[in-house]
Amino acid sequence: MEEALDLLVTGIGRLVTAEGTFPKGGKGMGMLKSIPKAAIAARARRVVAAGPEEEVLAAAGDRPVGRWLDAAGRLVTPGLIDAHTHLVHAGSREHELSLKLQGVSYLEILAAGGGIQRTVSDTRRAAEDDLYEKARRTLDVMMTMGTTTVEAKSGYGLEWETERKQLRVARELNRHHPMDVVSTFLGAHAVPGEYRDRPDDYVAQVAEEMVPAVAREHLAEFCDVFCEEGVFSVRQSRVILEAGRRWGLRPKVHADEMADTGGAELAAEVGAISADHLLHASEDGLRALAEGGVVAVLLPGTAFFLGETPAPARKMIDEFALPVALATDYNPGSSPTESLQLIMAMAAATMRMTPEEIVTAVTLNAACALGRGGETGTLEPGKWADFVLWEAENPAYLVYRFGVNHTHAVVKKGHVVAVNKKVVGSC
Amino acid sequence: MEEALDLLVTGIGRLVTAEGTFPKGGKGMGMLKSIPKAAIAARARRVVAAGPEEEVLAAAGDRPVGRWLDAAGRLVTPGLIDAHTHLVHAGSREHELSLKLQGVSYLEILAAGGGIQRTVSDTRRAAEDDLYEKARRTLDVMMTMGTTTVEAKSGYGLEWETERKQLRVARELNRHHPMDVVSTFLGAHAVPGEYRDRPDDYVAQVAEEMVPAVAREHLAEFCDVFCEEGVFSVRQSRVILEAGRRWGLRPKVHADEMADTGGAELAAEVGAISADHLLHASEDGLRALAEGGVVAVLLPGTAFFLGETPAPARKMIDEFALPVALATDYNPGSSPTESLQLIMAMAAATMRMTPEEIVTAVTLNAACALGRGGETGTLEPGKWADFVLWEAENPAYLVYRFGVNHTHAVVKKGHVVAVNKKVVGSC
Ligand SMILES: [Zn+2]
Ligand SMILES: [Zn+2]
Repeated sequence: MEEALDLLVTGIGRLVTAEGTFPKGGKGMGMLKSIPKAAIAARARRVVAAGPEEEVLAAAGDRPVGRWLDAAGRLVTPGLIDAHTHLVHAGSREHELSLKLQGVSYLEILAAGGGIQRTVSDTRRAAEDDLYEKARRTLDVMMTMGTTTVEAKSGYGLEWETERKQLRVARELNRHHPMDVVSTFLGAHAVPGEYRDRPDDYVAQVAEEMVPAVAREHLAEFCDVFCEEGVFSVRQSRVILEAGRRWGLRPKVHADEMADTGGAELAAEVGAISADHLLHASEDGLRALAEGGVVAVLLPGTAFFLGETPAPARKMIDEFALPVALATDYNPGSSPTESLQLIMAMAAATMRMTPEEIVTAVTLNAACALGRGGETGTLEPGKWADFVLWEAENPAYLVYRFGVNHTHAVVKKGHVVAVNKKVVGSC
Repeated sequence: MEEALDLLVTGIGRLVTAEGTFPKGGKGMGMLKSIPKAAIAARARRVVAAGPEEEVLAAAGDRPVGRWLDAAGRLVTPGLIDAHTHLVHAGSREHELSLKLQGVSYLEILAAGGGIQRTVSDTRRAAEDDLYEKARRTLDVMMTMGTTTVEAKSGYGLEWETERKQLRVARELNRHHPMDVVSTFLGAHAVPGEYRDRPDDYVAQVAEEMVPAVAREHLAEFCDVFCEEGVFSVRQSRVILEAGRRWGLRPKVHADEMADTGGAELAAEVGAISADHLLHASEDGLRALAEGGVVAVLLPGTAFFLGETPAPARKMIDEFALPVALATDYNPGSSPTESLQLIMAMAAATMRMTPEEIVTAVTLNAACALGRGGETGTLEPGKWADFVLWEAENPAYLVYRFGVNHTHAVVKKGHVVAVNKKVVGSC
């Protein structure tokens, strides 16, 4: 007798997925497989078959089935992948919003110990258990909203013990939470106050001491730098990213968010897996990204929260055939949201991306921005059985009907990990 | 012995509410009562006492308590009031989003039977029970997100039988759903295709036949017109709104959304209770609204969805001391969202309103835009016991942390009507 299936989902009204293991750029972003009357079979946490129901049932044959779910006509897509978050941190910064609305400038807030320095001091002080517990609750919220894999950056320590604490929390969450948590070392998130007058000393410390320690303790897969006017220059960023690469940490870059400093070009030069933000990237920079196969991770939630014009997604897709991913940038200073669904709605409303492009951007392309294109991001045999049953009939509805949670159930590695029940009624 | 209390909520970490029964304009919008360690007592569906816990407990004395809730330190505000929605309709229009993103113009969509004409034909065809069931589910979603009173416009019939059907559904929902549903007759939402060449005949029909019928059957409290370039002129709108007023329906106006046609001035002239949208209202128009005590109902979700610049809320509040309310404009064409919480976040991020102004805008001012300032919108003795327990410590957090549902529990007229439980875990 053949091995038992762990999960069989039938009655899927429409199964929508990108295909393959490499990021899709340009027109490829809009090309999805869309299968009516579909089913998915999973075994040992992976997809065995996903496609037309009769084909999946034929492949399943008379194998025993551990759990059989009826999707009752719902839409199914791969689980959402959030490829850029600052998951692990302490505190929240809503009081700054009020200050900013009263006309207090960001520099004044920073001078008073606010801004990122506030989160840094909160995070330095926080117990590891408290950081874990706060981040765990965040993951639960993300998961109920359809996210099954998330990236988590350090960067609120700006000194080794706290950077290490953040990365250890992310590693523990990856071990114990149903979601996959992919770690990025972002020691160069800001110049710490202690180094204000000698930033190159901090750059050297990150490159020569922290990066090797991260690698030796296997605390991250990626190394990221906030390459920005007034933060880290292209030269400084290169030093850190090259060090990361020597130690096996693949580069990522916070690039050209506030101004064009050549961050996109740097990302291509150092072989980054992704360049993120890119609101002000030059045409040369975009061309370099396209030639280098770098995924452009766009963060419209940040643009929304800061009142910026979002990145030129249409130009990136239409003129440069770039592979675009979308992420929340979840963080307490510039994008305090867990909802990748809202980011999807913003991508349609404020960046004019199509529903199909958006699905590719939060599944396959996001997986590829995390080096996980072979493991997740599409529903194909051999990949993790990560998917969402939606209270929707088509992807267009997901990006059109904004501000509410459309998940019905979330499946991670073949297990139902979240069910969205609205409890209404006198009780 | 004194009469029993139906509900006593203690342990409120902070109780935040506007005060009074009239709309707050200008600086008054930012002035909230904010009471730490508070409690609320309710009897016969109304607030008996709301304030410092020891005062409420002293007022409660040794009266028996039907239900005692511990707010466990949570923030409590009045229930949210959504003063502008197109609640009752059939169908959804996500396919148009895709068409628009592909470059098909709204006029082309309209010519192909799409746009509002699509919702009109769907709604004309729909059975009253199906309209009821769809709108009931929408109310449930709104209620789980903190809304306790909602306005509902007709306007997808554009002929009497369907307008009447929509208004009857709203009336039945008001009777049977926990939420209060306040009806507005919007027969003049668009010129129906049948009258394209003789719009004045439709105006006459609305004013002379439909308005009296609405009044005779007690189907609505307000009469609204879509006063806009290419829809109804100021002259046509005046005819309808004056007729409404003669029949006891207080005017509301969809004013100056796409262009300045003098809609704000008209609203003041006819004594409207609110003027809504106002993206392009002139300074004379805003002055007229202020002098007339007309509430400005702003709809940033629509601006977001259509890619418009939102209404100039800061100017309205700072220069004209207008009372501003915020609403979802929930409708299938230009604002398909139930979430007043997201509208609040948009008001902060895209209109630079402060958290305190935003609370006033979705509670007291919204109540006043519906003629309910004496009944709800603040937590004061004698008003409905309508309030929300939030997973938050202060109003700033609600508008800062966007895209997720922050309610813990929703209380309508003294009853817990919704509890927000996230179901997470293998099941
Ligand atoms: Zn970031
Ligand atoms: Zn409207």
